[in-house]
Amino acid sequence: MSQWITENQSAHLRLSAEVDKVLFSGESQFQKIEVAHSLEYGNMLVLDGVFQTSEKEEFVYHEMMSHVPLFLHPNPKNVLIIGGGDGGVARECVRHDCVEKVTMVEIDGKVVELAKQYLPTIADAMIRQDPKLTVKIGDGIGFMAQADNEYDVIIVDCSDPIGPGEGLFTKEFYANVHKALKADGLFVQQTESPVMHKPLVEKVFGYVRDQFAMARLYTAYIPIYPTGMHCFTMGTKTYDPLTFVPNRERTFTTKYYNEKIQTAAFALPNFVKEYLLKK
Amino acid sequence: MSQWITENQSAHLRLSAEVDKVLFSGESQFQKIEVAHSLEYGNMLVLDGVFQTSEKEEFVYHEMMSHVPLFLHPNPKNVLIIGGGDGGVARECVRHDCVEKVTMVEIDGKVVELAKQYLPTIADAMIRQDPKLTVKIGDGIGFMAQADNEYDVIIVDCSDPIGPGEGLFTKEFYANVHKALKADGLFVQQTESPVMHKPLVEKVFGYVRDQFAMARLYTAYIPIYPTGMHCFTMGTKTYDPLTFVPNRERTFTTKYYNEKIQTAAFALPNFVKEYLLKK
Repeated sequence: MSQWITENQSAHLRLSAEVDKVLFSGESQFQKIEVAHSLEYGNMLVLDGVFQTSEKEEFVYHEMMSHVPLFLHPNPKNVLIIGGGDGGVARECVRHDCVEKVTMVEIDGKVVELAKQYLPTIADAMIRQDPKLTVKIGDGIGFMAQADNEYDVIIVDCSDPIGPGEGLFTKEFYANVHKALKADGLFVQQTESPVMHKPLVEKVFGYVRDQFAMARLYTAYIPIYPTGMHCFTMGTKTYDPLTFVPNRERTFTTKYYNEKIQTAAFALPNFVKEYLLKK
Repeated sequence: MSQWITENQSAHLRLSAEVDKVLFSGESQFQKIEVAHSLEYGNMLVLDGVFQTSEKEEFVYHEMMSHVPLFLHPNPKNVLIIGGGDGGVARECVRHDCVEKVTMVEIDGKVVELAKQYLPTIADAMIRQDPKLTVKIGDGIGFMAQADNEYDVIIVDCSDPIGPGEGLFTKEFYANVHKALKADGLFVQQTESPVMHKPLVEKVFGYVRDQFAMARLYTAYIPIYPTGMHCFTMGTKTYDPLTFVPNRERTFTTKYYNEKIQTAAFALPNFVKEYLLKK
């Protein structure tokens, strides 16, 4: 029997997907979790009522979170992922030949377990226990606070700044990210929609600009996220995506990312530039 | 009293907007028309149940439909708009100093009338009867068939390929567009979402490639359209957007468009390139 699951994208906007099977519905220690098979996008993960990822369009988010920072760095070896419990970012990171070690710190073990069970194409690197990958179940904020001069690239694949993700959008957190990175390191974090979540985007961009030599924003089309326009905030110590020149070959295929997208994603519409760069 | 209006974006996906006032609901000779005040996006125009435009995000669509083709042409003087009844594309076209004449042919006079009444910021050029602009109520397909070697730029601002817009997505129509353009002319048409409407995008791209020296596709973020990823198909006789170099100054401000977007919008994700360029 078919039914609809709905995300309240804002107080005044809703996206609803028809599902023919609810695969899991329950509560973890941290959040409400649902996995359902949607007719439009395949299996979907929903946390606290918010659509997180789906089998059919996950490649956009996971490729853009991973390959944009990793190709900007000329030789990333040690990568840290905070969050990313579905395993999609880890799957993309281990594909880079130069990457030797990927550490993923996800707070909610239940998300990892359910992703392995119901989102196997996304959780692929976790399921086959890729030798480069270490999955830790624990608090990413505390983990970051203890790291020092260790990582080439850090990817903060968090949920929204409500619930367990809240502490990942603070000034203190970005100071710790900066400290955890090597001298030429860089990081990226998903920061919602520049159309709908302007205050958040503006706030994070300000924090990152204060902490890093450069703050940059890029965008990608994510069909299941509010407004479809999703942005990623980058803090970088040395390498500037605005003057990027490809420095190594891509040895694997992608469905969204390519070398033109690497640069084009940083071309921001005027309404975004205006509020980001006004200071 | 608040209520919700819903678009069935596909058989399995719905977008709903809360509205506090229905301003108009009725039938024209051609389609069902609704205008309502939505809390998220301001006044919205809905045709046959499909969200067309809204006060708060219309600038994306209208700027990208107008300025991308107009700035690609080094000296557009005579512009034809097919459809575009809300007046947004006309408003943007008349802002170009070099443009001398804009002719708009909209089939549904009721849309023009309602836009003037309820979407005045969009209908601006029609309301103040801009001296460059001529609005004709009539059949764009027939109009195009009679035109010969007249226009520098043609913009097909149509609704979906069901209802009155159907004949604007045929081989014959593109042959007539080609004939209506001058020897160095170019045209652009909205062609839905590359994620959700792949068969349409692929079909139109094939037709345009057969008819024109070059077929090109570009994208923009339209929050109220399915998947948020919207594409525009361009047919051009001489000027190639992929090797574009700015050739004149922009003398007006924009909210979305800028010179980097002009080029970046043509950077296509691999999944789109693959199905477009496979032949």
